Amino acid sequence: MKRHREAEVSDSGLESGMSLIVTGTIGIDTIFTPDGQHREGVLGGSCAYFAAAASHYGPVRLVAAVGEDFPDEHRQVLASFANIDARGLETRAGSKTFRWSGKYLDNMDHRETLSTDLNVLEEAPPRVPEAFKDSQYIFLANSHPQVQMDMLAQVPDAKLSVADTMDLWINIAKDDLTRLLRKVDGLVLNYDEAELYTGAKNPVTAGRKLLGHGPRFVVIKKGEHGCILVHRDGIAALPAYPAEQVIDPTGAGDTFAGGMMGHIASTAQGEDPGSFDVIRRALAHGTIIASFTIETFSLERLAEITDAQIGERYDEFAAMMRLH
Amino acid sequence: MKRHREAEVSDSGLESGMSLIVTGTIGIDTIFTPDGQHREGVLGGSCAYFAAAASHYGPVRLVAAVGEDFPDEHRQVLASFANIDARGLETRAGSKTFRWSGKYLDNMDHRETLSTDLNVLEEAPPRVPEAFKDSQYIFLANSHPQVQMDMLAQVPDAKLSVADTMDLWINIAKDDLTRLLRKVDGLVLNYDEAELYTGAKNPVTAGRKLLGHGPRFVVIKKGEHGCILVHRDGIAALPAYPAEQVIDPTGAGDTFAGGMMGHIASTAQGEDPGSFDVIRRALAHGTIIASFTIETFSLERLAEITDAQIGERYDEFAAMMRLH
Repeated sequence: MKRHREAEVSDSGLESGMSLIVTGTIGIDTIFTPDGQHREGVLGGSCAYFAAAASHYGPVRLVAAVGEDFPDEHRQVLASFANIDARGLETRAGSKTFRWSGKYLDNMDHRETLSTDLNVLEEAPPRVPEAFKDSQYIFLANSHPQVQMDMLAQVPDAKLSVADTMDLWINIAKDDLTRLLRKVDGLVLNYDEAELYTGAKNPVTAGRKLLGHGPRFVVIKKGEHGCILVHRDGIAALPAYPAEQVIDPTGAGDTFAGGMMGHIASTAQGEDPGSFDVIRRALAHGTIIASFTIETFSLERLAEITDAQIGERYDEFAAMMRLH
Repeated sequence: MKRHREAEVSDSGLESGMSLIVTGTIGIDTIFTPDGQHREGVLGGSCAYFAAAASHYGPVRLVAAVGEDFPDEHRQVLASFANIDARGLETRAGSKTFRWSGKYLDNMDHRETLSTDLNVLEEAPPRVPEAFKDSQYIFLANSHPQVQMDMLAQVPDAKLSVADTMDLWINIAKDDLTRLLRKVDGLVLNYDEAELYTGAKNPVTAGRKLLGHGPRFVVIKKGEHGCILVHRDGIAALPAYPAEQVIDPTGAGDTFAGGMMGHIASTAQGEDPGSFDVIRRALAHGTIIASFTIETFSLERLAEITDAQIGERYDEFAAMMRLH
């Protein structure tokens, strides 16, 4: 982990070494929470959340497109994370940024989408900049599986590729998703999405069925109930960090993935980055960084947490589950 | 842990040492599962499940009442667990045994009660035999909180007392339950019951509110999602064992408590049996024994598992969560 505010990341630091890349969306969110709070037009999107989380572990390259309406203040927030290399952020003249509005129900694990304006997401996807094509670790944040496939093809040297997905693509582009599964090392998806894709209600069974389509591992996310890892070489379950302060769960899944991939990219040099034990341990880092995300809106908490705070909570989490 | 089939439990062995006692119900269950299987008239009830689980860790004294219709075969099943001391099992002439019938819905975490015949449970509760009154560890399995209070009063030397409860008592006897909370060291209840009692949707907040009524710790059970421990001295979360074979979840919660209390009673000699770390570790034992319970109907799996099988799964579970 490197503190993003302190790290002096040189150009060569961003180019070499960890070379983690994330492709996905950057959006402008409006969010309503059950306690009556709401925030209008905050920075969101899978890429933004992922990169902010991963940046606490090391450099991360971001590829996404926004419109000319993308506010300067949001650009400055991204720039405040020194480890985020935003050279892959395309700003398109004449286009509008993706916008999403949602409302969390009483149970924070469920939300209702109030409006979605795809805008720039309906246009051609962004391109991976030349300088990013040597990336070794790639996370394909949620988008159409064809777009994910296209992004993956632009990063030919990836040692570890992991994709997220959502119910929409399982419903309308399942064949594309199945083709993607043959190409990636890992898949991250929600509990109900794993059931939707496989028809299996048991998450371990669902995970095994997904492995049958190609990936080495599947991470089934259960929100406040943690996650299950189904890997060719083993099964593991992890609880979520038992958080009492949950304001806005938006981005929890993306930052979970960001912590996981950021940890792997920063530590797995030399060893197999997709091994059962590497992934299992990385999930704990994802769990901890996600537990900070939900403490307030947007990237606010991720912008202010320190290494010491992350490390302290990680140690508490590890001690909580230490049995031998 | 002692293997119940091998243990040579002398009378003095049953009388002294661990002296764990459980009070609750023994019933005759009829169970329908989503895969179309069903079992008619099998041995069930909180006491039976708890005792069978706890008996894998050491002696356990059982206090419950059945009617004269209680089948010999069920009596023999109980007797097959050498560590169960059933001298507290009252068989009442002219009475009928408690019967319950239920159907599990597609999601194994939810069930529908088809019929309940309280029978002997509507009569005076059983008495704690003289020989059991020196028990040091008491588990008050689910029943009316007044009955639980009465049972607790008959075991005055208890070093650790833990109660289970259910939504019914929160709805119709909340004041009695609140009085009970002042008397016990710990409470075990389901996630939705914790919310029902406290009005708090967050399980940690709900647990803290429950601590405000007296107990040192609260264990919030989440079925397939594990459990959360809210203790005066700390918070912990544990996943469930990621089981693929789930046939009948009946008794999972009772055997979880049985493993927890059995482990404490067999190992906590000398140390504070209600400390955060003792309870936290005990929950992992409860988790593992419960994962065997659900692999088939009634006490069938608990009757056949060996120490080696329990130990192996426990070690696997511990390794799954080892981070430091």
